[in-house]
Amino acid sequence: MADEAMEKRKPDFEIRTDLALEERESFPGDGGEIRGVSLREWRENGSDIRMTEVKILDGNGERAMGKPRGTYLTLEADRLRQKDEEYHREAAVQLAGQIRRLLAGMTGRTEWSILTAGLGNSQVTPDALGPEVAGRLRVTRHLEGQYGTGFCRRRGLPVLSGIVPGVMAQTGMETAEILKGIIRETKPDVLIAVDALAARSIRRLGTTIQLTDTGIHPGSGVGNHRHSLTEESLGIPVLAIGVPTVVGAAAIVHDTADAMIRALWDSTAGGGIGGFLQKLDSEEQYDLIRELLEPEFGSLYVTPPDIDETIRLLGQTISDGIHRALF
Amino acid sequence: MADEAMEKRKPDFEIRTDLALEERESFPGDGGEIRGVSLREWRENGSDIRMTEVKILDGNGERAMGKPRGTYLTLEADRLRQKDEEYHREAAVQLAGQIRRLLAGMTGRTEWSILTAGLGNSQVTPDALGPEVAGRLRVTRHLEGQYGTGFCRRRGLPVLSGIVPGVMAQTGMETAEILKGIIRETKPDVLIAVDALAARSIRRLGTTIQLTDTGIHPGSGVGNHRHSLTEESLGIPVLAIGVPTVVGAAAIVHDTADAMIRALWDSTAGGGIGGFLQKLDSEEQYDLIRELLEPEFGSLYVTPPDIDETIRLLGQTISDGIHRALF
Amino acid sequence: MADEAMEKRKPDFEIRTDLALEERESFPGDGGEIRGVSLREWRENGSDIRMTEVKILDGNGERAMGKPRGTYLTLEADRLRQKDEEYHREAAVQLAGQIRRLLAGMTGRTEWSILTAGLGNSQVTPDALGPEVAGRLRVTRHLEGQYGTGFCRRRGLPVLSGIVPGVMAQTGMETAEILKGIIRETKPDVLIAVDALAARSIRRLGTTIQLTDTGIHPGSGVGNHRHSLTEESLGIPVLAIGVPTVVGAAAIVHDTADAMIRALWDSTAGGGIGGFLQKLDSEEQYDLIRELLEPEFGSLYVTPPDIDETIRLLGQTISDGIHRALF
Amino acid sequence: MADEAMEKRKPDFEIRTDLALEERESFPGDGGEIRGVSLREWRENGSDIRMTEVKILDGNGERAMGKPRGTYLTLEADRLRQKDEEYHREAAVQLAGQIRRLLAGMTGRTEWSILTAGLGNSQVTPDALGPEVAGRLRVTRHLEGQYGTGFCRRRGLPVLSGIVPGVMAQTGMETAEILKGIIRETKPDVLIAVDALAARSIRRLGTTIQLTDTGIHPGSGVGNHRHSLTEESLGIPVLAIGVPTVVGAAAIVHDTADAMIRALWDSTAGGGIGGFLQKLDSEEQYDLIRELLEPEFGSLYVTPPDIDETIRLLGQTISDGIHRALF
Repeated sequence: MADEAMEKRKPDFEIRTDLALEERESFPGDGGEIRGVSLREWRENGSDIRMTEVKILDGNGERAMGKPRGTYLTLEADRLRQKDEEYHREAAVQLAGQIRRLLAGMTGRTEWSILTAGLGNSQVTPDALGPEVAGRLRVTRHLEGQYGTGFCRRRGLPVLSGIVPGVMAQTGMETAEILKGIIRETKPDVLIAVDALAARSIRRLGTTIQLTDTGIHPGSGVGNHRHSLTEESLGIPVLAIGVPTVVGAAAIVHDTADAMIRALWDSTAGGGIGGFLQKLDSEEQYDLIRELLEPEFGSLYVTPPDIDETIRLLGQTISDGIHRALF
Repeated sequence: MADEAMEKRKPDFEIRTDLALEERESFPGDGGEIRGVSLREWRENGSDIRMTEVKILDGNGERAMGKPRGTYLTLEADRLRQKDEEYHREAAVQLAGQIRRLLAGMTGRTEWSILTAGLGNSQVTPDALGPEVAGRLRVTRHLEGQYGTGFCRRRGLPVLSGIVPGVMAQTGMETAEILKGIIRETKPDVLIAVDALAARSIRRLGTTIQLTDTGIHPGSGVGNHRHSLTEESLGIPVLAIGVPTVVGAAAIVHDTADAMIRALWDSTAGGGIGGFLQKLDSEEQYDLIRELLEPEFGSLYVTPPDIDETIRLLGQTISDGIHRALF
Repeated sequence: MADEAMEKRKPDFEIRTDLALEERESFPGDGGEIRGVSLREWRENGSDIRMTEVKILDGNGERAMGKPRGTYLTLEADRLRQKDEEYHREAAVQLAGQIRRLLAGMTGRTEWSILTAGLGNSQVTPDALGPEVAGRLRVTRHLEGQYGTGFCRRRGLPVLSGIVPGVMAQTGMETAEILKGIIRETKPDVLIAVDALAARSIRRLGTTIQLTDTGIHPGSGVGNHRHSLTEESLGIPVLAIGVPTVVGAAAIVHDTADAMIRALWDSTAGGGIGGFLQKLDSEEQYDLIRELLEPEFGSLYVTPPDIDETIRLLGQTISDGIHRALF
Repeated sequence: MADEAMEKRKPDFEIRTDLALEERESFPGDGGEIRGVSLREWRENGSDIRMTEVKILDGNGERAMGKPRGTYLTLEADRLRQKDEEYHREAAVQLAGQIRRLLAGMTGRTEWSILTAGLGNSQVTPDALGPEVAGRLRVTRHLEGQYGTGFCRRRGLPVLSGIVPGVMAQTGMETAEILKGIIRETKPDVLIAVDALAARSIRRLGTTIQLTDTGIHPGSGVGNHRHSLTEESLGIPVLAIGVPTVVGAAAIVHDTADAMIRALWDSTAGGGIGGFLQKLDSEEQYDLIRELLEPEFGSLYVTPPDIDETIRLLGQTISDGIHRALF
């Protein structure tokens, strides 16, 4: 299954990161402005969790960022990979605040009937974040069936349901088909789709949570969905929550080679190869490296050996965040 | 989750077995005929696997058996709980033959587009048979999307998809709702629903496979579905495949008490309590025992300690049977 | 594996419960005294957790109870099978107090170097309690190797190590051999052996924790060890912590038949079979039932379907109790 | 746990590969001879599995290779990561032949009493190869206890036992201590230690099996043992079987940088930085890269996302190989 997933990834090789934040950072002179993209950074008082909101505002921003317009919110919390209950609670609280804010913006309401989809393959650890989160949800929608419509609202409960749709290699169906059918039948207001992502930087694995009101797009996620999960395709707004769990081997090499080139440039006073390489733009450097890498790494993705623990910890924290946002 | 499942079971206490075969055996004078019910037993040449087909033919049969009209086919294979590859292969071959025969009867065709639903809770071992089977399927339906409609048929492959819908306490949705939505979206010809069952006799746990063209009915299965999964509710024929994995504690006691009473009757020459009890019919005996059991056992269900191994072995054999029937 | 375990159980059929408390309760007129056995019951202030201490004082007590002399302490906490964090914390605190008290009595000290053995088969859910507990331990002994002997004591830490020895059908070795070798090499002061037990009453499954300073004896536990784990066999004192997770099917039937007989006796005014049965003592009744049960149930053990959840909850609570006792 | 394992790895950063084959390949002019090291390559007739035997013959060879003298045998089978039963069977047959040959050479006998240790952490997927293999063994040693000494030999069975000792962060004990105790108590002739390894090349992950008669040495393996498991430390010969499952991020970068430098050298005709870098030897290049990598990657190890499937497949194949060698 993973082999197939990796196979399928090949044509999408250009997609080097699912994080809008990393896309934004890849622009030269990173303090600079990009037309059609707004950027805002802050920390909640006293917290060391860094929030960044990238907004893609128009077609120009879309072209520059290679992502559809909308809001991309990132929580960076370096200690999320550690077993620190207090810290994870704080992250869940901040996550909850942002989930509420985005849901309110997407729906114009503050009470919702929500379907949560845990995307990915529960048999492949780095792709199992979605199923891990869905397995920890306190669903309530069935109480409406048992005790009558309106039960949840009268009790101040959200109407929450959850599904683990599996991946196409296991089900023979597109995730979009499965969710479309379930949504038509059970009529939630909004879909929360939780997925594992690919990042460029190993430092981000398991330490960054991205929220976006734009849904899931083809070629994104560890499992690499072919069909998009968006308001257009599903008929209801989609809040996507993702955490990077893999990095492309080519991206690792690129970043290091970049550092190496800068160092060499300094040491050789800008002559020779250093100069040659400096003249290449990021895309050309990347292509050069990719060529040099073949066939050894191909389009291999890598993950840290402690990913099992990371998936458990973040599965807990994200489900906690969803509960705090809704209950 | 399991607690809730057991909770929910209470009102359905009368359902003591999901096996039509056991229902049939419970009639006194077991060689006798029941109006509206036909019975046929055989073995494939040389095999020690016993096949029994119970057909409920009309309203009279339905009332007598407490099950809807249709065909109930049982494979009894005593060594299925043992790790004997050869034996499991033989069981899979016989299972495959019966699956083909039933599907042909249900649809009038010999090629099908099939959705397989692995019912039950993967987190509760005795209820995990369905997810175990679904996790081993070789699905093909997505190849039609990748290589064009008709690809499977041209290659002599079935169009097979699979889903693990989860249980209501995990999803907040009725299994029927989830399947209805997926069926409407992906349009299979027929649903195969695999589920863990409750039996009356511990001897049958993990050794009996029941196939029926009547689908799944409320109150059946270890997970105890509230809504039926039938052609009426889903719009396509439903072949249900089940294996008993739990027995009600009350049923255990009943069967033993029954044996005890018979023995005592013999030893006291028909007088006293033996006589008193003999005069009660099976239902009255059962009620008496149930009353005596409360509140210690309540409606407790029990399972053997080696159920983990049994689920693995049978998950393999049933998925193998489905593959042999279709590929 | 489980099949073998169940096979091996046959010769030990007489052992119907691993709980001294149940053995004690089986004596007629349960308020009465047994020579050589002392009994004490209490609750910590305000708690609904019932503590019972059975002490077997001499050879007479050993013969009456069928267990070696020593202290058997039982915590009965009916809500342990439910997911109630507060309640589990309270149980862990009370457990910790009793562990400290017993360890102090066994060793004459209040600081210990402890090896914890998680007995049982991690692949068979009802036998997986020991591995579950061991997997959650915060071991410290290796810090002595890393930072120098005495490191733990200077920091106020216990010297704690842990092992999951596996079961004989997996390892080909007696658990006693494995532990003896490890103890000789690593020299702990005391062994804590955690194991799943067999009870007579379904009500006790997952709700009762037994502590004893007598170690583990042949024929006890779900996995049914052949060699004892005691100070005599291992050279250091052994504190055994166990929770019942299975009940013999014969015990279920016996208890119910007993109730039935009493009811029938009343309804027929002591004549006939009721009278016949009343004259049999408990052991004779049990033998009669066992005979009637064969071959259907044989020596089958049963467990509730929600045992997966119970093992997780109690694994957490017992490891928490050990930590609170030691750290 | 994994974090600690990765923490501990830091001081051993120089160990870039556990494979003698890769060490050998790292010498410049790879057709050349190294004093004190013999090399032999072959394929069994018609097979595409490549066998390589590196023998380190003396102190000179030890210094050159950074590994103790002894035999290092490698099976390279590129399709081992795929689910191809036939291919895995062939690999198991060839593995079995080499296990027998090495055991015979190590012990001077052809019948053995063997303890198999499944090293590593079953909770961290890439480190779980050893536990996976041990969990599939058909142990027999206990039959000697049940049916009398000599039972196995009379039946033509090996005397086989197995243990999963866990990792120090879980047990608080050195693996060497645990095995030493068990060996002293149960007296096997030889230890087979199965472990996950670190390689330099991603291409080798899950496709290469290394056998060596030199045992396990500090700093090797994914779990990074501190004490050696050798005939010197344990008193019996040790056959180590390992499969690489992780690669150091630094190694990935080094290999690519190397390719890049060669390409740049060509394109700039040997001047500038290319020339500067070419003058550095492999060790200096590596140090330079390591420095540039900090702190982003530190001593990070990476693994492919489909490692779960790889561990299952190879666990099956290696246990099959051991069985074929012994039974």
